[in-house]
Amino acid sequence: MDEKELKQKTGKTANLYFSTVKEEEKPYHLWRYFDKELARDMSLYITGQMYSREKIPHKTRQLITVAALTVLSRPEELKLHIHAALNVGCSREEVAEVIFQTSIYGGVPATNTALSVLKEVLEERES
Amino acid sequence: MDEKELKQKTGKTANLYFSTVKEEEKPYHLWRYFDKELARDMSLYITGQMYSREKIPHKTRQLITVAALTVLSRPEELKLHIHAALNVGCSREEVAEVIFQTSIYGGVPATNTALSVLKEVLEERES
Amino acid sequence: MDEKELKQKTGKTANLYFSTVKEEEKPYHLWRYFDKELARDMSLYITGQMYSREKIPHKTRQLITVAALTVLSRPEELKLHIHAALNVGCSREEVAEVIFQTSIYGGVPATNTALSVLKEVLEERES
Amino acid sequence: MDEKELKQKTGKTANLYFSTVKEEEKPYHLWRYFDKELARDMSLYITGQMYSREKIPHKTRQLITVAALTVLSRPEELKLHIHAALNVGCSREEVAEVIFQTSIYGGVPATNTALSVLKEVLEERES
Amino acid sequence: MDEKELKQKTGKTANLYFSTVKEEEKPYHLWRYFDKELARDMSLYITGQMYSREKIPHKTRQLITVAALTVLSRPEELKLHIHAALNVGCSREEVAEVIFQTSIYGGVPATNTALSVLKEVLEERES
Amino acid sequence: MDEKELKQKTGKTANLYFSTVKEEEKPYHLWRYFDKELARDMSLYITGQMYSREKIPHKTRQLITVAALTVLSRPEELKLHIHAALNVGCSREEVAEVIFQTSIYGGVPATNTALSVLKEVLEERES
Repeated sequence: MDEKELKQKTGKTANLYFSTVKEEEKPYHLWRYFDKELARDMSLYITGQMYSREKIPHKTRQLITVAALTVLSRPEELKLHIHAALNVGCSREEVAEVIFQTSIYGGVPATNTALSVLKEVLEERES
Repeated sequence: MDEKELKQKTGKTANLYFSTVKEEEKPYHLWRYFDKELARDMSLYITGQMYSREKIPHKTRQLITVAALTVLSRPEELKLHIHAALNVGCSREEVAEVIFQTSIYGGVPATNTALSVLKEVLEERES
Repeated sequence: MDEKELKQKTGKTANLYFSTVKEEEKPYHLWRYFDKELARDMSLYITGQMYSREKIPHKTRQLITVAALTVLSRPEELKLHIHAALNVGCSREEVAEVIFQTSIYGGVPATNTALSVLKEVLEERES
Repeated sequence: MDEKELKQKTGKTANLYFSTVKEEEKPYHLWRYFDKELARDMSLYITGQMYSREKIPHKTRQLITVAALTVLSRPEELKLHIHAALNVGCSREEVAEVIFQTSIYGGVPATNTALSVLKEVLEERES
Repeated sequence: MDEKELKQKTGKTANLYFSTVKEEEKPYHLWRYFDKELARDMSLYITGQMYSREKIPHKTRQLITVAALTVLSRPEELKLHIHAALNVGCSREEVAEVIFQTSIYGGVPATNTALSVLKEVLEERES
Repeated sequence: MDEKELKQKTGKTANLYFSTVKEEEKPYHLWRYFDKELARDMSLYITGQMYSREKIPHKTRQLITVAALTVLSRPEELKLHIHAALNVGCSREEVAEVIFQTSIYGGVPATNTALSVLKEVLEERES
């Protein structure tokens, strides 16, 4: 994949996932605030080279991300990826199910925090 | 769901997931060693009430579990659930993809540990 | 234990522990928001089958919970269980002692966060 | 507390807790291998100033330690403190109960690892 | 080192690191709220015996602390130590670099949280 | 930076850091076992774009890595980076110091595990 193609893929995937996320909540801007070149490298790697891969469907990929962020208890990042999960077609029941299920591995408190984030995102999107 | 039905579901799900896992590596026996009644309650809850739910397909559920156990770095438990993932029809490429992807959230060292476990399970199953 | 007995135990234990917790802060309502049947299963398992066990006294059980939630750094859940610890008769000195001691295992920053939560709960209860 | 008193307390507490632990498994020797003066400072602080406090009984203190090390998944350190718990009079049922209970907070895989360590320690002590 | 010397070192190091931190945000006061004697022991050990060591320069020590608190995701404590890092002469570029680099080990979400804290501290200090 | 330059930087940095690490212990080979193209992308990003940056000296960068891997308790990865730290000129005292210091943030058990790894690496290199 040449650089032009990588940039296109990055843009397309970013748009597919995060179109409903407020601009100022996107980590890319925080990275740029400190280092523009590194922000670009990170974005091309994470979004262009990792998220854009097609070995598993977008829906599965986002449910996996929700699972990882739930057990790690990273509520801010989880908010972005619950948006992404809903944007690629996951239902609220599927997202909730993943969060409930991971209570077995990461404990019930991490699940409770993640369910609060899901509730907040749903209310935001419905309003 | 009455108790008989719950027991049947628990047995059916346990068999579907863990038929290739060595008997002595199943946590159920460890639980029973310390407390038979609690082992039964935990088993009916975890396997019967959580794993047996049908809101997401078994394949998705197991990939989610692989993601959670990778970022938490729980290699022994991961071994069991990589078996389960393969047993319900996930390909080795799909399992590897999940482990690679979660490096963004849980860091590369956790991914490396999980890939080693996957390699070990694949070699065991192929031998 | 039959289901009626389990429900009674669950209610009795929930009442003993969480009577001073605001209704909207109880995870049970969050679970119900997403899945009523699962909320019931989780509640019967966690409160009825785990918390209601009598192998260690309630006071010890709650100090153990405070220790676990401190080192995991789960401040919202900790708030609920500091209430529970005080409700079953632990003194503020005992709760503080547990939080201080776990700094050896989980680090001082986790202890600082937990002490802030304890201070907040004490001030709430005294006002 | 003057220094002589602190040293005495440290020695007394270390002896009470770790008399059944093999000399080479005690962290103190590892610390000394790298820095003798710091090893002494750490030992006086951790064992003399933290573990020797008397605000909660030794049995409770060790069950708390078992809870913290279980959810953090620190199996080597847990081994030492399961010895300590048994040495100050906790029963195997009490230690197992703490490990089971913390599955709600730290997840079932961490509990499984800790139960394996408990089983190993019990078998060592019985042989 | 006798006690008088230890107290002097503790005061000198605390002043060097935390002079720009608001008094009420210093953990020492939280410790004292619960236990004055233990607060003193912890302070002499942590600040006097650990932070005051001279085997690595203050700048390196604070960058190390920033790395540890980033991957553990302890934003409140990180705030104090970003102040300390800047107070001992680290540049904002160096602090940002450490936070970016640790994304490889602790994941990108932990890095994002830490960058937000750094941005907040920089804005506070510049205003 | 064009691709040729990036590859050269990646090779040079990998050689500087990991020349004393056994070939089969390098994560790159594990990545390649599952996906050659992704292995290449990860290697160019992690080693070429992150480790090769020159905003902080190699010695500081490796001490930071040791700190992060200690508190996260990732002993296998830590082994590689203790090699790297020693290879770029850190002394054993400096590495030990970092591991001791992080006990304040990540707890003493994580420090003990890391010190064992350091001892093992030193013995390997001296033999």
